[in-house]
Amino acid sequence: MPPLTPYQQLEQEFRRFAALRGAANMLRWDAAVMMPRDAADVRGDQLAALETECHGILVSPRVARLIERADANAQGLEDWQRANLREMRRERDRAIATPAVLIARLARASARAEARWVEARSANDYAILAPHLEEVMTLVRDRSGLVGAALGLEPYDALVDECSPGLRTTEIEPLFRSLARRLPALIQRAIHAQPAVPLVPAGRFSVSRQRQLAIEILRSLGFALEHGRFDASERPFTGGVRGDVRITARFDATDPLCGLFAVLHEAGHALYDQGLPVAWRGQPVGRDRGVAMQEGQSSLLERVIGRSAPFVAWLAPLLRRGYNVSGEHWESAALLQRLTRVHRGLIRVDADELTYLVHVMLRCALERRLLAGELRVADLPEAWNAEVEARLAIRPRDDRAGVLQDVHWAIGAFGYFPCSALGALLAAQLHEALRRALPTLDQDLEAGRFEDLVGWLRTEIYQHGAQLSFDELVRSATGRPLSATPWLRYVDSKYLG
Amino acid sequence: MPPLTPYQQLEQEFRRFAALRGAANMLRWDAAVMMPRDAADVRGDQLAALETECHGILVSPRVARLIERADANAQGLEDWQRANLREMRRERDRAIATPAVLIARLARASARAEARWVEARSANDYAILAPHLEEVMTLVRDRSGLVGAALGLEPYDALVDECSPGLRTTEIEPLFRSLARRLPALIQRAIHAQPAVPLVPAGRFSVSRQRQLAIEILRSLGFALEHGRFDASERPFTGGVRGDVRITARFDATDPLCGLFAVLHEAGHALYDQGLPVAWRGQPVGRDRGVAMQEGQSSLLERVIGRSAPFVAWLAPLLRRGYNVSGEHWESAALLQRLTRVHRGLIRVDADELTYLVHVMLRCALERRLLAGELRVADLPEAWNAEVEARLAIRPRDDRAGVLQDVHWAIGAFGYFPCSALGALLAAQLHEALRRALPTLDQDLEAGRFEDLVGWLRTEIYQHGAQLSFDELVRSATGRPLSATPWLRYVDSKYLG
Repeated sequence: MPPLTPYQQLEQEFRRFAALRGAANMLRWDAAVMMPRDAADVRGDQLAALETECHGILVSPRVARLIERADANAQGLEDWQRANLREMRRERDRAIATPAVLIARLARASARAEARWVEARSANDYAILAPHLEEVMTLVRDRSGLVGAALGLEPYDALVDECSPGLRTTEIEPLFRSLARRLPALIQRAIHAQPAVPLVPAGRFSVSRQRQLAIEILRSLGFALEHGRFDASERPFTGGVRGDVRITARFDATDPLCGLFAVLHEAGHALYDQGLPVAWRGQPVGRDRGVAMQEGQSSLLERVIGRSAPFVAWLAPLLRRGYNVSGEHWESAALLQRLTRVHRGLIRVDADELTYLVHVMLRCALERRLLAGELRVADLPEAWNAEVEARLAIRPRDDRAGVLQDVHWAIGAFGYFPCSALGALLAAQLHEALRRALPTLDQDLEAGRFEDLVGWLRTEIYQHGAQLSFDELVRSATGRPLSATPWLRYVDSKYLG
Repeated sequence: MPPLTPYQQLEQEFRRFAALRGAANMLRWDAAVMMPRDAADVRGDQLAALETECHGILVSPRVARLIERADANAQGLEDWQRANLREMRRERDRAIATPAVLIARLARASARAEARWVEARSANDYAILAPHLEEVMTLVRDRSGLVGAALGLEPYDALVDECSPGLRTTEIEPLFRSLARRLPALIQRAIHAQPAVPLVPAGRFSVSRQRQLAIEILRSLGFALEHGRFDASERPFTGGVRGDVRITARFDATDPLCGLFAVLHEAGHALYDQGLPVAWRGQPVGRDRGVAMQEGQSSLLERVIGRSAPFVAWLAPLLRRGYNVSGEHWESAALLQRLTRVHRGLIRVDADELTYLVHVMLRCALERRLLAGELRVADLPEAWNAEVEARLAIRPRDDRAGVLQDVHWAIGAFGYFPCSALGALLAAQLHEALRRALPTLDQDLEAGRFEDLVGWLRTEIYQHGAQLSFDELVRSATGRPLSATPWLRYVDSKYLG
């Protein structure tokens, strides 16, 4: 056997890195879904040790030397390998900018804060979370400063770039400003345009039946349960690793739609994860193209597809059969009205697609102020409530319906929200491209045939892994750079048409 | 802050080691309880990477240097620290004897074989398992040879010593020989002495109710569910880590006792794990004292305590209330008869305590022949059936009731069975000591008061971690070295009295 080239040795190092990071992902899933209450400290030690190992691989002199030597011989590499090398370098550069001790402390602090968030949320008591959030905040601030300095980015951009490589506040801000100008009137008009409140049938919908139905729909969409799981958890998320993708959801016995659409959201992520290129497994180029691309997938399934007339036409009889119900309320027209109802509400994950962007943008504003130290953790609940009131003219009745609704900040996930907003815009743009490529899309959805839809996404998005940049991938899939125009066209036709 | 001493630096290294090994333990639990069918390869990569890291720590020049320097200054250490250093050295010596590549291959092969074992067992098809067992076997043979050569042990002893440090075939064989001489007649006489077959009430016992009852009993025993879990799995086991101890069990809707007593068995392990000294967490000295000591705990709870008249007197009304049943069959006398019924059966985990030792000893004989290469994997089912027939005068109807019933060999766990036999003997010896120390033990059990029982075990066993050797710990807890005499006294009085 000839000796391995520097590039091949790098592949080996990153395979090891991926296995350890995968182990950490599984343990994070477990922490959210399975872990007993008082085990957070032990788990924190495990995650910290894994993070330290992963960090140690990235910053090792060996990897530095191999990257240098592989760079010098890059002309002999295939395109995807050169992209892999670029992603390796990106990951290494970030790691070098962050001291291992800071990573370990952040892993421990956020494991603790996540467990406390669950408690705080269930007790509706922000004070349970506050000191832990404070600790996470301080560590995130340190990290963003260090990474930003090393990569020549503003601290907040250092975090956004971590979520979605290449995205910058300077590109996001103009999109947000134009949306912020249009949204109040759009929401107002959409609320006026919609028919009188459709009556929601009262009743109880067995959680185990909801679960079965969700699994049935996941199967129809092509989610491979022999390579994944579906469980209940406090907050819906998709975790695990390629080859073992784990969806979680929360069901509400009084509402058969809320949990189901959360599942559709997660299915968007999970199909992306399961569709990533097998041949590049364990390599940086084999990963997804960041949070904004992921949110594009989830938003496409949950909102653009999931709340469309043809999809609901397929869904309605499933619901009627599943819950043994009938009547006008369970006809697709009434269901679609419920599912596309615009409403100034308090909870982001329950929001319609218009107010959703308001929710996300207010979080962006708050997290930037938190990071800059302009807003103290102690003052966050009041600032939250004030923002909600200013933007939506309603006020959270308590912190559970306010600042405690999302886990992101507790686990140190700053920079996620702007990517989530871009994902919403991307979903509309992907949908336009999909309709051009698949003239029978609507008939397929009505018939519950998702092969062509998911096949198109596999070819245009999933299979590219991280080979192209976000911008390149958007252009190659949709023919143009990301803009707000398709989304505005889409909501105009859907809500005001 | 003064610089850390070599010993303190070793503690740091082993804390990291424990965190990574703990991560692997959690992922093994997940593999058995949660993992989707086709994720075994991905999981194998994760476990292999973790094993490699752990191995890397143990064989690192840094640890070697620190052990040497700590040894040179051992006079300044406390007793437990000196014991910790001894355990560190033991672990390091074993690791140095085993090449990392072999460990990684074994981790991968046994992850695959475990998944195939589940399939093979459910399909009753040994051929599904055979090639994977063959692979595991070859790797285990290599490993036992290398470790044995390095430590001056026979290959089989190298594996036994790994399960229970310090135990040797030369000590176990005489115990086995004397038991083998006594057992056939004992079994024969016990079968004759017992009353006519007690009628087993037919019926279905809801698995979820069985689960609830098991949890109730676990709580009564003092198992801390905020530091552990209880789940269903294909084979009962206790996994996880100190601080997050995970019990699993399998329930049978036609038999409310089988699963329950498996839970009592696991509770013996789990209470030991939860009772290990908190102050030594993450250090080798803070671990349990090996498999034979563990099996002593599980055997004590499942058999000696669990199938005693006073415990059953407490249990019977719980069962009657739990399943809403009544009548003579559910009185404690009838239950005790069922629970102590001696019967030449095929399944080890369902065996009474007399035939249990026969089951274990036949596995010891087979695994020694497998390891020595005197028995081929292909010939194992026939050899198994022949051994069962020779020793118990019955023949397995199929491989599910034969060689496929235990997972141990598939996951490379050779050397476990002799330790399990010693555990059974130890349980009787512990029980004699317990009765001397706690004159009200029987009244406590009848009243469902387990604090003193578990308290005694905590003081005499759990809290010592791995500070004493197995032999020292047995002597300190019971006043004498391990022998078969208490067990023979115990079965004599219980089955022939």
